[in-house]
Amino acid sequence: MTTGKRCIGVVLFDGFELLDVFGPLEMYGMAADHFDICLLAENEGSVASRQGPRSVVDYPFSQAPQVDILFVPGGTGTRTEVSNQTLLDWLRVQSQHAEYVTSVCTGSALLAKAGLLDGVSATTNKLSFQWVASQSAKVIWQKQARWVEDGKFFTSSGVSAGIDMALAVIAKLVGQEIAEQAATWAEYDWHRDASWDPFAQLHGLIEA
Amino acid sequence: MTTGKRCIGVVLFDGFELLDVFGPLEMYGMAADHFDICLLAENEGSVASRQGPRSVVDYPFSQAPQVDILFVPGGTGTRTEVSNQTLLDWLRVQSQHAEYVTSVCTGSALLAKAGLLDGVSATTNKLSFQWVASQSAKVIWQKQARWVEDGKFFTSSGVSAGIDMALAVIAKLVGQEIAEQAATWAEYDWHRDASWDPFAQLHGLIEA
Repeated sequence: MTTGKRCIGVVLFDGFELLDVFGPLEMYGMAADHFDICLLAENEGSVASRQGPRSVVDYPFSQAPQVDILFVPGGTGTRTEVSNQTLLDWLRVQSQHAEYVTSVCTGSALLAKAGLLDGVSATTNKLSFQWVASQSAKVIWQKQARWVEDGKFFTSSGVSAGIDMALAVIAKLVGQEIAEQAATWAEYDWHRDASWDPFAQLHGLIEA
Repeated sequence: MTTGKRCIGVVLFDGFELLDVFGPLEMYGMAADHFDICLLAENEGSVASRQGPRSVVDYPFSQAPQVDILFVPGGTGTRTEVSNQTLLDWLRVQSQHAEYVTSVCTGSALLAKAGLLDGVSATTNKLSFQWVASQSAKVIWQKQARWVEDGKFFTSSGVSAGIDMALAVIAKLVGQEIAEQAATWAEYDWHRDASWDPFAQLHGLIEA
């Protein structure tokens, strides 16, 4: 689909979770020869994270380019955004032509509510699992997984799981060596196994 | 020193490293009853990370409150900032009354250049170790450490090491249970051992 750099479009909304966004972007940024990053939101200006710090929007949805990799983070803001038809409609339009659609943590609630995960295997934050799963009964929700790849969809478990998944996306799209290098440069202990998920049991989703 | 929430002041500069800043802030944000976060920079407006995304400055140095925890990230921008006397002077003033002074990755180069780490044990990014160490011969540089605590100074190794150190700071200041909860909520596999550092060998700082 693309011959040069892939454009990663990060969807921001008030109450996004900091590490959901900036953990993966750290890793994509370590492979900067292969990826461009832009921050997208409904409106121009800046968007406040759940923790407070604000990020500057590169493009409002109305002026955003078609992205190659659509990246939807989670955060407490998703509780409001599942009712934001403008955002859900825009996700549907972008997803049609995106090469990959990715979510971290409760970001999958937005993809699910938009109907994009119908019939797709997916996962999400383990502490908020029941709420996310309640957004759509048509998704094949996975209770235990660090991340799930199904067709063009990559969905990760909570917060820091997005880092592990981003490295897996880099490995798939540009090679294992580049992903290993990104992890090493960031002095990051990459969990390479998508089935590694002690948090499913810690948060009571599966039996001990 | 403080009875209520501690104020964490994050020092931003062009070319700061995303995960250096937002990994630790994710964890401090999980203990939001105990910490307030503000982003500080030389000038008002916004500051661009090494990877591109921009963050909004809460206060320019001239209007910043005295912080309880001074937090200096790394990034390629440190190569320029080691010559920024305004920033170095401001670090010296803030450090005098800060309860703790912390750095992630090459952020310790700025503390070292400011003379704040004279006689102090400290560490830094392993790939940039020689450059950082060259900023001051008066620092007791540690080649192998995830992070180093010495008096009021906490310095971490590269990028993701800041997350492990932030959890250690939380454990020290507000309790192990709160730190464990933060890691679990973020589904993060915390390296609790400050001496864990396979990257020192990977980057050739110590013999196999």
